[in-house]
Amino acid sequence: MKFSCTQANLNKGINLVGKIVSAHGTLPILNNILLTTDSGRVKISATDLEIGINTWIGAKVESEGSITIPARLIQEFINTNNDETVSLKLENTTLNLASKKYKANIKGIDASEFPVIPNIKKNVFAEISATDLGKALSQVAFASAIDETRPVLMGVLFKFEKNELKVVATDSYRLAEKTIKLEKPPVRDAQLIMPQRAILELNRVLSGQEGKVEMYLEENQILFVLGEIEFTSRLIEGSFPDYTQIIPQKNTTEAIISKDDFANSIKMASFFARESANNIKLKIGKEELQIVAASPQIGDNISSLNAKVTGPVMEISFNAKFILDFLNVINAEKVSISSSDKASPAVFRAAGDNDYVYIIMPLRIEE
Amino acid sequence: MKFSCTQANLNKGINLVGKIVSAHGTLPILNNILLTTDSGRVKISATDLEIGINTWIGAKVESEGSITIPARLIQEFINTNNDETVSLKLENTTLNLASKKYKANIKGIDASEFPVIPNIKKNVFAEISATDLGKALSQVAFASAIDETRPVLMGVLFKFEKNELKVVATDSYRLAEKTIKLEKPPVRDAQLIMPQRAILELNRVLSGQEGKVEMYLEENQILFVLGEIEFTSRLIEGSFPDYTQIIPQKNTTEAIISKDDFANSIKMASFFARESANNIKLKIGKEELQIVAASPQIGDNISSLNAKVTGPVMEISFNAKFILDFLNVINAEKVSISSSDKASPAVFRAAGDNDYVYIIMPLRIEE
Repeated sequence: MKFSCTQANLNKGINLVGKIVSAHGTLPILNNILLTTDSGRVKISATDLEIGINTWIGAKVESEGSITIPARLIQEFINTNNDETVSLKLENTTLNLASKKYKANIKGIDASEFPVIPNIKKNVFAEISATDLGKALSQVAFASAIDETRPVLMGVLFKFEKNELKVVATDSYRLAEKTIKLEKPPVRDAQLIMPQRAILELNRVLSGQEGKVEMYLEENQILFVLGEIEFTSRLIEGSFPDYTQIIPQKNTTEAIISKDDFANSIKMASFFARESANNIKLKIGKEELQIVAASPQIGDNISSLNAKVTGPVMEISFNAKFILDFLNVINAEKVSISSSDKASPAVFRAAGDNDYVYIIMPLRIEE
Repeated sequence: MKFSCTQANLNKGINLVGKIVSAHGTLPILNNILLTTDSGRVKISATDLEIGINTWIGAKVESEGSITIPARLIQEFINTNNDETVSLKLENTTLNLASKKYKANIKGIDASEFPVIPNIKKNVFAEISATDLGKALSQVAFASAIDETRPVLMGVLFKFEKNELKVVATDSYRLAEKTIKLEKPPVRDAQLIMPQRAILELNRVLSGQEGKVEMYLEENQILFVLGEIEFTSRLIEGSFPDYTQIIPQKNTTEAIISKDDFANSIKMASFFARESANNIKLKIGKEELQIVAASPQIGDNISSLNAKVTGPVMEISFNAKFILDFLNVINAEKVSISSSDKASPAVFRAAGDNDYVYIIMPLRIEE
């Protein structure tokens, strides 16, 4: 194998795929990325057996071939290389890299040992804007479960129905649901669950990208294609719980408040709630919202914010972290909190946005 | 105690002193800062028994008093408080804080339990510009020893001689020396050793400050006064080794190279030297400098940089990290490396700067 390419293209390609390489993998081959000449271009691939990424860069290919190379070392070498073009040449399983000022020999592992990334690119199942998909993943993924007692909750649900895609995650204490209108309906209605780690990596790959993402679907795999990038993930087996029943359709009390002031007050309250398991109380009054935190050892804190309130006054307790998670992913001037009583799920939204809903189960505090 | 002040002033004062408060102190009182009304102002103090800081902020004092309060909690409360003014009132040992939107009660510890920060402000020993002092500390402190076998090397030497101050640190593998011209000579010649942690904190306090720093000296204490800030540190007892003998006065070979290219190449080489104890080799040729790193497991790397060389060609091995430490603290287009043979200390300077010198002992490699 022998080819040359620009440092900029090689750097971009390696950085894109390199981040999914596990830093401390048990199998040495999984610490490597695969370079393969491919019809006048070079394909760069990485996999952790759950996720796979391929990307292609332009290159001047002099002879065909392929090799796997430690991802971290080649990333570091190319990142610090400020020459314009780099020549790469394989000698046995050692890759020689040469540019104007810099030379290196990096020891690789034969390409035949690299795990195959399944190719399921047959019929497009659905199309979605990269921006919409990225935003949905950011607003939903954090609500997935971390503990392994219910594997389906460790993933994010994609629910295709007519020309809508709902992206949903819950850890059973809170739930996030984003609805995206698709320009054309998918091939058929379908539900699938993608692992949270794959969602986070896909979101990273999508960041700053524009254009359409094509989705291809097989029984236990999904493929996203965006220009020169292919992203594959295995799917989680099992059924996602029917979450729709826990989203209240109507609540008796609603408070609308400034998002920035609310975020600030919740953050402040969380400092005082650190020794009380993050437990804070919202008191919805006639024209104000009070945020209260108290801890016997360190002291207490009350914030009072102007609010536009409809319905009866009420008090509800929450985990402050769950509210902060919501406030971190919305971009709005006002937020709406609504609930019917202190034991029922409360609904958080950006005021006026019906495409994104966030539900938190209140804490039950004996008083 | 009862006073009010602006959020901005209180925030600035608390942040300035709060950073020296140990996060996990064994004595609860050392986690606290001391607030004391003081002639129409409020004095804010912190100490870890080695370092002490006092600062003063403007306040409207209604009744005198003092209290100590957990540093972290009051920092967090004031940082997230975006109201304009804050009123503080002591009730027993609980501090009530109130502003337009936010209220808090924070439990304190009686001021009488706070350690006394010694007041040694009598006669000015020396004066120095805050900018010059800050720069010297940044360029020198990193070379102090970390291991505790020779306590004097865990500090930074201040050597006053006529109208010069030399600031020096060494861990016996490398040495940094900065010379500052003082506008007027100190009261007398003197040498003192300040602990590295105190140096780092003093440097943080100085950052962004202008004007003159007054230094006051006692047998085992030093005090720096800068406007409304007083910074006290204990001194390390013992004599600093006579380091002047190891600074070569004349070297046979010198190479002058671009600082940015050199920094880039050393960084690249350090990736390849990770498994060889950071050992890299500099090869000074007739018109170039080569940086070489090799590791049997992962591969090798050579960078070739244009250099202006005088004297015979030579090869010397160094710990790459020591060179990077130097390159991180100088601001120059070109650097000079000089040495007389591969076993003697090498001299690193910003080309043309005689006020700062950095010495590295080469690694002795059997070949």
